[in-house]
Formats: sequence, C-alpha cells, structure tokens
Amino acid sequence: MSSEIDQKFKLPARYAGSEKSVWVEYIQLALEHKPLNLGQGFPDYPPPRYVTDTLAEVANSDNCLIHQYTRGFGHPRLVAAIAKLYSKLIGREINPQTEVLTTLGAYEALFSSIIGHVDVGDEVIIIEPFFDCYEPMVKTAGGVPRFIPLRLKETKGKTLPTSADWVLDKQELEGLFNTKTKMIILNTPHNPLGKVFSREELEFIADLCKKWNVLCVSDEVYEWIVYKPNKHIRIATLPGMWERTITIGSAGKTFSVTGWKLGWAYGPANLMVNLQMVHQNCVYTGNTPIQETTAISFEKELTRLDSDECYFNSISEELVSKRDYMAKFLTDVGMQPTIPEGGYFMIADWSPLESQVNLNSEKDKYKDYRFTKWMTKNVGLQGIPPSAFYSVPHKPLAENFVRYCFFKKDENLQKAEEILNQWKSGKGKMAN
Amino acid sequence: MSSEIDQKFKLPARYAGSEKSVWVEYIQLALEHKPLNLGQGFPDYPPPRYVTDTLAEVANSDNCLIHQYTRGFGHPRLVAAIAKLYSKLIGREINPQTEVLTTLGAYEALFSSIIGHVDVGDEVIIIEPFFDCYEPMVKTAGGVPRFIPLRLKETKGKTLPTSADWVLDKQELEGLFNTKTKMIILNTPHNPLGKVFSREELEFIADLCKKWNVLCVSDEVYEWIVYKPNKHIRIATLPGMWERTITIGSAGKTFSVTGWKLGWAYGPANLMVNLQMVHQNCVYTGNTPIQETTAISFEKELTRLDSDECYFNSISEELVSKRDYMAKFLTDVGMQPTIPEGGYFMIADWSPLESQVNLNSEKDKYKDYRFTKWMTKNVGLQGIPPSAFYSVPHKPLAENFVRYCFFKKDENLQKAEEILNQWKSGKGKMAN
Repeated sequence: MSSEIDQKFKLPARYAGSEKSVWVEYIQLALEHKPLNLGQGFPDYPPPRYVTDTLAEVANSDNCLIHQYTRGFGHPRLVAAIAKLYSKLIGREINPQTEVLTTLGAYEALFSSIIGHVDVGDEVIIIEPFFDCYEPMVKTAGGVPRFIPLRLKETKGKTLPTSADWVLDKQELEGLFNTKTKMIILNTPHNPLGKVFSREELEFIADLCKKWNVLCVSDEVYEWIVYKPNKHIRIATLPGMWERTITIGSAGKTFSVTGWKLGWAYGPANLMVNLQMVHQNCVYTGNTPIQETTAISFEKELTRLDSDECYFNSISEELVSKRDYMAKFLTDVGMQPTIPEGGYFMIADWSPLESQVNLNSEKDKYKDYRFTKWMTKNVGLQGIPPSAFYSVPHKPLAENFVRYCFFKKDENLQKAEEILNQWKSGKGKMAN
Repeated sequence: MSSEIDQKFKLPARYAGSEKSVWVEYIQLALEHKPLNLGQGFPDYPPPRYVTDTLAEVANSDNCLIHQYTRGFGHPRLVAAIAKLYSKLIGREINPQTEVLTTLGAYEALFSSIIGHVDVGDEVIIIEPFFDCYEPMVKTAGGVPRFIPLRLKETKGKTLPTSADWVLDKQELEGLFNTKTKMIILNTPHNPLGKVFSREELEFIADLCKKWNVLCVSDEVYEWIVYKPNKHIRIATLPGMWERTITIGSAGKTFSVTGWKLGWAYGPANLMVNLQMVHQNCVYTGNTPIQETTAISFEKELTRLDSDECYFNSISEELVSKRDYMAKFLTDVGMQPTIPEGGYFMIADWSPLESQVNLNSEKDKYKDYRFTKWMTKNVGLQGIPPSAFYSVPHKPLAENFVRYCFFKKDENLQKAEEILNQWKSGKGKMAN
C-alpha cells in the first residue's frame, strides 16, 4: 500500500534535481557539531534597536487591524515608502500601486520574477557563482539556464585580489545571448564574491539586454552594504533599462533582520503584472505588522538619507572593519581571501593549506564540501562550500574556495582567528 | 519598443485565466465607496491580548537571533508545538521534523500541497463552492480540476436551512473518481457555507480516496470555529487516511490574526517531502518572530485545551451569538440565510428582495456580482459574490447568494441590521 502511494505521489518531474540544499545540509551539520558558525549570512548581534522597538509598538498598536490581512500586492504604507525611496534613488517617479510588489522575502520576489516571466524553452543567463535558488526556479518554470562564471583574473604584484578582479569574459557573455534569451539575472553587490559591478560592466550587460530584448532581474539585496570608494549602481538607472529591469530588495538585508522574510520588487507596471499573478497564486498577501514596521523604519531613514546616522550609511562603516579584520586573519593563516567591495561575505582560497586537512575522511565529490565539512567537524569552524553556487559543469571552479560571513560580533571573529591559528599550529580543535 | 517588450514578456500560458481576483476587485470597491464591509474574513476588533503582547515581547527579546533566519521547514519551537497539539488530536505521534511544514499562510500550504503533488494531466476533485485559489493552483501545475457542487437539498417545514443541508450527490462524486484522479481538496469547516462535514460524509470520501489511491488535501483552517453540537472531525483520523492526507491549518484563523501569514501542513513524511521541495524553491523559510510568537501561544493553549478559557473553545462561544444575530436580521429583512455549523461566514439567498435592487445598473455577468456591487454603492453594505467560488459552468448556482462575514464587533453587526432595514423600508442609503 505504502509503495503504491510512493509511486503515485512522487515529486513532479519539474522539481527533479532541486532536492538537495546546501543550507539544509549545513544547518544540520552545525546542529550536530556546534562549530563557530560563519556559514549563514546574518548578524549574531542585535539589529538596530529602533527597528525591533517599532515591531513591539506595532504589535501593541491601538489599530487592531494591523494584525489582519492587508492589500495583497503590498501594504499601502510600505509600498508608499518603497516608492518614495526608490523614486529618489532611481531618479524617476515610481507608482506605489502598479510598480512595486512586496513579497515574503526577496526569495519570493525572485520566485515571482522568474516564474512570472520564464516560459517553457526560454533561456535565462545566470552569472556564477549565483545564489543557489536561481537555477531550480528557472528549471521548474521550464526554462533553460545558461551559465557564465566570473573568473579571477591575473593579479600579479597585488597583495590580495579584490572582488573587482572577478570578471566576466565579454565575448563569452555576448555568445550566450540569442533570440531565445528571455532573462539575465544580475546580482550586485554580489553574493558570495562581494563584487560591486562597475558602470562599465553594467553598461555592457545593459547593451546586450537592449540588443536582444532581454529582461534583467537585478538582485540588489545587498544594495546598502558597499565599501568606500565603491558605489552601488542600479542597472535600472542606465539609459533604456528601466523598461526592462525588475529590481529586487530585502528588508532582511536592509535592516539586518533576515528572519522577517520581507522583500520587494519594483519595475515598470507591464512587467510587474506577471509577478503579481504569481504572488497572488502562491501566497496572495504579506505579513501586515512586519510590513507596517518596515514602512515606519523606511520613513525614519528617509528623513536622514544623507546623514552618517542613517542605517543605510552606518552599516557599511560598521562592517568594513570586520571585513578587514577577517581578511587579515585569513591571510595570516595562509589562505588567500578576495577582498569584497560589498556584501558581508568573503571568499577565500584555502588550497595553500590543503596539506593540513584530511580531505579523504569526507566522501563528497567536490573538495570545498570536503574541506568545509572536515573543518566543521575537526577544527570547529564552519564555512559554506561555494561550489553550491555553480552549475554542475562549473563546480570544479570553486573547489579551492570557502565562503565565510563576517557580519558577526567582534569577539566571534576573534574566536575564529584563534581557532584558525590553533589549527595552523597543529594543536587541533579548541574546546568550545 | 514597449510593444515589443509587451509581446515578449506576456504572462506564461500556465497563468492564463487566473488574472481576475474577487479580492482585488472588492477591496478596491470598498476603498472607493467606504461601505460597512462584511466582505473579508477577519475580525474588526482586537485578537487575544496575550497573543499580541507575546509578539511585542518576542520583538524585544534578549535573544537577538529571533530576528534572523530560522530552520526552513519550520521554526523548531513551532513545529514542536504543532506536532504536540496534533499528535493529541489525531491520536498518533507526529514527527515535528518530517511530518510538519510551516508555511507563509495556509495559502502557501495549499500552494505547496497542490504544486508539489499535481503533475501534468492529473485530475483534482474540487468541491464547490471553493476557496478561490484552489482552481488556479491546480491549473498552473498542469492539473485538470473536476468540480462537484454542494447542493441545497429540500428543507420542507424547516424555518431556515443549515449548512448540513448542503450536500454532495454521492453518485456524482463517485463518478468523478478514476485512474487519473490524483487529489481531492476537502474544506471542513467549509468556507463559505460553514458546513462541518459529518463522519458519514467523510467516510464516503475516504473510502473513495482509498479505492482510487487518491491524496486528500484537507483545508481545516476553521478547525476551532465550530458551533455546538457540531464537532470537527479530522479526515486524517479515519482508518487508512493518515497515509494519504495532508491537513492544512492557519495561525491567522486559529488566533484571529489573519495578517500574520503563518500556516502549516502536516501529514506522512513521504507525502510531505513534495511540499518541502516546493516551499524550499519558492520562499525557503518563514518569519522567525511570528513563528516564535505562535509557538508560545500554542504552548499556552496546550496547557488548557479542555478549559473554557482556551481560545480554541472560547472563540466559538464568542461567535455563536454573532451568527444568530446575523441570521435573525437577514431573515427579518427578507433574505434566506443558511445557518453555518462552523466558520465565520454566512451565505444568504437575497433573491426574495430582487425587486428592490437595480441589477441593470451593473454590468457583470453574474447576478450576485451585480447585487453585491449595487448594495455596496447604493446601500453601503458590502458582501462577497459567491459565484467567485465556483467553476464557470457552475457559477449560475450561486447567483442568488451573497456571503457575509459575522466576525465583526456587535456595533457593526447592529449597523448592518440598520442599513438593511433602512434599505428595505425604501429610505435609501444611510449617511455614514
């Protein structure tokens, strides 16, 4: 009986190959081995106090309707705040009713963008490494992902590479565009490399999008985490690009509350209707108190956008010293990190230390999986294997790397340094 | 250029026909005409105080990680509470890790159940009237919905019909099952009729599911809103049904906080993996503080399940007088309501009053749309047209009905009564 059920109720073919998740596996690993966890991308210290205070105030609000359903495509106060902010940043008036959709996390914004636009046989260009949901989302829509890796160029003479040294081959990119191309997914600032795409790089992509009538889905969830002198450029602001760009943002990344699961997409109304249909058919509406709280938080930041007090400015100041500290201790221990221009992740080449790792004790196919698992179990420090962010043919490109998150309190970064030093000196795993 | 874009980026065919939403249209209508709104299903007074107080406490918690990502398939504390509650109610041990999935609203639980199980060509039996997302979800998965209406049987001699008088024709239901049938979607207590399916009715459905190896998705979001002496029976408790049932619940309905967008599904692990894959690929994880708050609320209610104080018991006591009050004033004005056994909606036949409505002033195809729009604009009272909850061929079955929600404060129900009386007496629209 049970096998009759299993046979009939197997996973539909469109989900084939998307069963494995690096997150599920590595969260489980962390639960079992209790390492110092630099894997997942969130702070281990409190988000801005006023943001959580506002949530408490909203929870106790006299307006009891704040706990009930709100407008499906976005809570009115929040879409108004989002439209106001991005109208300023994009330099054009954004209509809060038709050009903004709030979603249950940026993840759902990606889902709605991809499922709402990709039809069977459409090609979608994905830049590697990529946030790992892009690929299965494209495939479940019936689309065909076409991959192109960012490659680390020769950096002779420089002490350390930066994320700007990871570049697309222009000819290779050009060669991917054709009449079947429906979409390119851009991620800037980039996870996990921290690359902040330059104007020149964005213009090259934009020109190809215009030439081939291609939609650009621009995942900009790390838009406020950019280290001077780098500047985040929104591709929607390039000539002729508003009309073909859907830009995605995240309250979780913007206000350092990843557990709030609130994101948004904005773009021209004719492209947004497709997202609305997917959203309406999948979750219908978002969380009201969380949207109200985020709206109030945006309103506060909107009054001080140019001030150092503005969280959108202070967060990168707060993070840059953590970035530099991590880069130093990774270098000191013998790894070669890439200095990120944005975001809160750092990629490091651990291969100079390969002799100190017993890779044979792990069974995974790719070395970065074996390295990160061995380190979690034997050294007590957890990172994420970046080959999870590559298509199968390109996974070997990532085997020598590990991704660490540096949005952690200073004492935990110091602890990470101590753990690595102890390991390097051959003294094995520190007591927790 | 814009038309070139419009042509290439039209909605994928799988979404055809799902563009129109009664909710979007009627919320807009309410915004424009500001009627007394008995349309949407939520209370217009505060949810239990301890629930919102708990959210405020969680927001200000010393545990700052409560604002960051939690386990994707469900926050550990919440899945533990859900498993504990339903283990008791279902009479079997439910595994919180593998047999429970928390979702972004019951809506996403329905989405994950349907998209995760329905493959191209699979037939899905949907009982009419139905919550309006069932049909497009089945269609976007490539499935074929097969509809069967609940029909009001002859109720000679009774003053008012009850929702128990709305029944399935057994032969008609039997005739829908065949080798292509993958799923039946059950909704008990039922929206909008308020029908609480009897054990005998559930057994008939269960026997067909077992005979044809069919999965039952049981939408039980109104499980706690059942009026004595009726009892909610979970179809998963029937012999041989746990193995083929996915049951869906809602924090929004359970704790009267529809804006919290938190739901869940539970069922056997082999069926739940399909839901996990869809969830992982669509939103990945839920809201942490909302899940923590709901877990704490469940823990509180678990200590007093048998007490009148338990919100799961007191909510129906609170609502039954509202139900009876609405039934009386609708009857007095000349409509024929169906007394619901559960839920917080009431269906009423308004056709005896047709002569007092100018249906010609509205352009919609179905009379219930014209009635509800005319009433909103000219009388100042809004209901929902139930033909929105029928397949196209069966919409005429609903034309004489309107759906009202009675989960409103007493003064607003009194106001609804006054509005209807004033209209009936020919005095037109009340001043607001």
